[in-house]
Amino acid sequence: MSEVVGAENVLVDDAARLARATGLSYLDLLRRRSPSVEFPVPDAVVLPAGPDEVQAVLDVCVRHDIGVVPFGGGTSVVGGVAALRGDKASVIALDLVRLDALVSVDAESRIAVLQAGVRGPEAERLLGEHGLTLGHIPQSWERATIGGFAATRSAGQASSGYGRFEDMVTGVRLATPRGEWKLGVAPASAAGPDLRQLAVGSEGTLGVITEVALRVRPTPAVKRYEGYALPGWAAGADAVRDLAQHHALADVTRLSDVDETEVSLALNAGLKTAALRRYLAARGVRRPCFLIVGWEGSAHEVAVRRRETVRRLKAAGAVRVGKALGESWRHGRFAGPRQRDALLDRGICVETLETAAYWSNVDELRDDVRAGLTASLGRAIVMCHVSHAYETGASLYFTVLTARDEADPIGQWQRAKAAACEAITGLGTISHHHAVGVDHAPYLSAEIGSLGVEVLRAAKSAVDPTGILNPGKLI
Amino acid sequence: MSEVVGAENVLVDDAARLARATGLSYLDLLRRRSPSVEFPVPDAVVLPAGPDEVQAVLDVCVRHDIGVVPFGGGTSVVGGVAALRGDKASVIALDLVRLDALVSVDAESRIAVLQAGVRGPEAERLLGEHGLTLGHIPQSWERATIGGFAATRSAGQASSGYGRFEDMVTGVRLATPRGEWKLGVAPASAAGPDLRQLAVGSEGTLGVITEVALRVRPTPAVKRYEGYALPGWAAGADAVRDLAQHHALADVTRLSDVDETEVSLALNAGLKTAALRRYLAARGVRRPCFLIVGWEGSAHEVAVRRRETVRRLKAAGAVRVGKALGESWRHGRFAGPRQRDALLDRGICVETLETAAYWSNVDELRDDVRAGLTASLGRAIVMCHVSHAYETGASLYFTVLTARDEADPIGQWQRAKAAACEAITGLGTISHHHAVGVDHAPYLSAEIGSLGVEVLRAAKSAVDPTGILNPGKLI
Repeated sequence: MSEVVGAENVLVDDAARLARATGLSYLDLLRRRSPSVEFPVPDAVVLPAGPDEVQAVLDVCVRHDIGVVPFGGGTSVVGGVAALRGDKASVIALDLVRLDALVSVDAESRIAVLQAGVRGPEAERLLGEHGLTLGHIPQSWERATIGGFAATRSAGQASSGYGRFEDMVTGVRLATPRGEWKLGVAPASAAGPDLRQLAVGSEGTLGVITEVALRVRPTPAVKRYEGYALPGWAAGADAVRDLAQHHALADVTRLSDVDETEVSLALNAGLKTAALRRYLAARGVRRPCFLIVGWEGSAHEVAVRRRETVRRLKAAGAVRVGKALGESWRHGRFAGPRQRDALLDRGICVETLETAAYWSNVDELRDDVRAGLTASLGRAIVMCHVSHAYETGASLYFTVLTARDEADPIGQWQRAKAAACEAITGLGTISHHHAVGVDHAPYLSAEIGSLGVEVLRAAKSAVDPTGILNPGKLI
Repeated sequence: MSEVVGAENVLVDDAARLARATGLSYLDLLRRRSPSVEFPVPDAVVLPAGPDEVQAVLDVCVRHDIGVVPFGGGTSVVGGVAALRGDKASVIALDLVRLDALVSVDAESRIAVLQAGVRGPEAERLLGEHGLTLGHIPQSWERATIGGFAATRSAGQASSGYGRFEDMVTGVRLATPRGEWKLGVAPASAAGPDLRQLAVGSEGTLGVITEVALRVRPTPAVKRYEGYALPGWAAGADAVRDLAQHHALADVTRLSDVDETEVSLALNAGLKTAALRRYLAARGVRRPCFLIVGWEGSAHEVAVRRRETVRRLKAAGAVRVGKALGESWRHGRFAGPRQRDALLDRGICVETLETAAYWSNVDELRDDVRAGLTASLGRAIVMCHVSHAYETGASLYFTVLTARDEADPIGQWQRAKAAACEAITGLGTISHHHAVGVDHAPYLSAEIGSLGVEVLRAAKSAVDPTGILNPGKLI
């Protein structure tokens, strides 16, 4: 391996290997905090410098039958980077951090090619020099990478406007055990199935994504975020559905349920909560659901689009809360993962999970997941929001807080998560944007059929006949 | 077979078999007109009544190793329904015409499930009873079917607004030799690769599509179509790109090049051509490119969206030609295929072909395809239009007219088509919405890589291990 990437880019020390051994799920954090819990650790960390070196590393791994776990930002919350080795004697973490370049910009076509290891902020900085933005801002943005976004079908907080990550992918370059694979020659095609959509979401099992061609947009001159309150969950969901079904979605559209709104009111004294409650109650909103809406673009575009959104929101009974709520959310939007560490220190079990469903299933799905979680956990705070809306349905994102069972903290959450996954199966997707990894793999065949799993296995065998790529993930 | 579908639904007479032997390409029409040209004909036509009967027919075909060519509207222009038998002793045309039901409507989620054999007009009639529309109107609409749209990644004339057919597909049900396969539980998902996008575009090679769940929209109260003239191709393409990159595309957006505009002016005396030319010339448009734009929706939506489109068009130098041009196109938009028969009678070689590319390649692609066609054909009229625009690129649709070489009419077009395909390879996709079939199969591996073809073959082996499904197509 050293002859491929240089000896200084093959790390075998404990700190380097441990740092690439897990993602950032609650269970990952528990495992890392508990000296008694064992988890798999890669035998080495390899840091190739570019697509050619990634390919060369794979060739070595094929020859020596070494498992390969692609590693980007390490922000998986579903075990996507767990150092499983399957039937292999050894496994490496293939850290893509050195694939850090903006490869090309085609301003006319609004396409930029970025290497897989570029993190969210660096992608925006590199594109910003060309007056462009990706607009892909998931909560993991500060650490997560372009390759990881593509491998997991990421969705960002502004994806109602900018699209999900797979909507932005115009092309993809992968290193596979059978050689390089490049896809994407046109914005749309009828040249058979869209194999880009097979590569996107393949979670390192069909190849190592080394470069991604992405649709980009001009850096917005104006970003306007504001808050509204809807009278209850049903009214809120109806309002978001109305926007989604009438070309009137804002770029950011995030509806909290009553529980999440109450927690946010309780935590956010700066909003002058009591006065706000009186103001809303006077307008008939006694159990508010907060809605954050945000538009980005030229001043003219934002004005035109905002007018439509606001017109429909008012007709749906929304009461404007003002810019403070929108800006408060915007500035705090990466804080969640950091707050989690503080909560863990205080004996709290805190985790999130998410799904999506067609509109006619959304309410039942929310009720069933809440019921499953509370039946398993007992006293718990379960909050929910819609973070992504489509014409045909919406995502649901749950945040759960409960007292940690110190006797069996891992089992406590595993049981609750299983209850939630069982509630989801049949009503929605097992993941809207967190991906499958290890944690959701048992539920995949219920969603895509045993034939679907066999098709994925067959595709994998075609590009990875000896099964070195990310053993134990997805399928 | 008779025990599955009833004896009356197994047709072996020549007329029935011949009627399902070809599609509607120029070469198909030539073959049908020439008594000396042989083409493959299915051994029988089988007409199952629903998804269960389709599955039962496939089971019989697996047992007896019979090839199966799914047959919808028979409008393929790329040999998609050619009765090839591969290594099978016999082959049937599986005509899906009896799968003609609207299965369900979920108005809240705006999803309707239609069976595969429903034709375009019937789909609109069935949905219209619920106040809904699909809005998918390709030129083949009068005959083509829901299953065919899905199997070929169809794009309609209004797909700038309603989306391509694959954008409408929320779920798909297939019969495969390994059993039924159902996909689609949510509007978006990160549960691995999107296998719906593998089924869509699979052209009968991965299964027989029996039902499709589709995003629908309310029947528009207003349809407004109008025409503009742009000063030349470059200005026209720039204007369409500007619309696509600023949320300002009309639902129908169709830009003709100078040659197509000249033919349309010459054919359309009702537009008072001379006066129109003077009017345009006085406004600086001497070599006009016509642009048809159309909006559909509520009166308010159409007004708001039209205002944005027109504002940008005027800034781009477009001169309004008026509603007559838009309405004239709208009413004549299915006439092309019918006119072709008349032209064939008069010794004309007439055919269309299409591609798509990123914006920075669009001009070169248009030039190269035109050059390839005229180098091969000699004197020919080659017209081109953009019928579908995206943020990152556009489709190009070519219509070719030339004197037929009566000594070798098939060879004449095969050579010209090969020249066009070679011009396309490397710059664009081999098909934007006509699909692969037989005619484009030789060019697929240049587009998706030999690994891409192997992945498709592997996927096919998983669901169709004995290879009965649509032999010789796609891969």
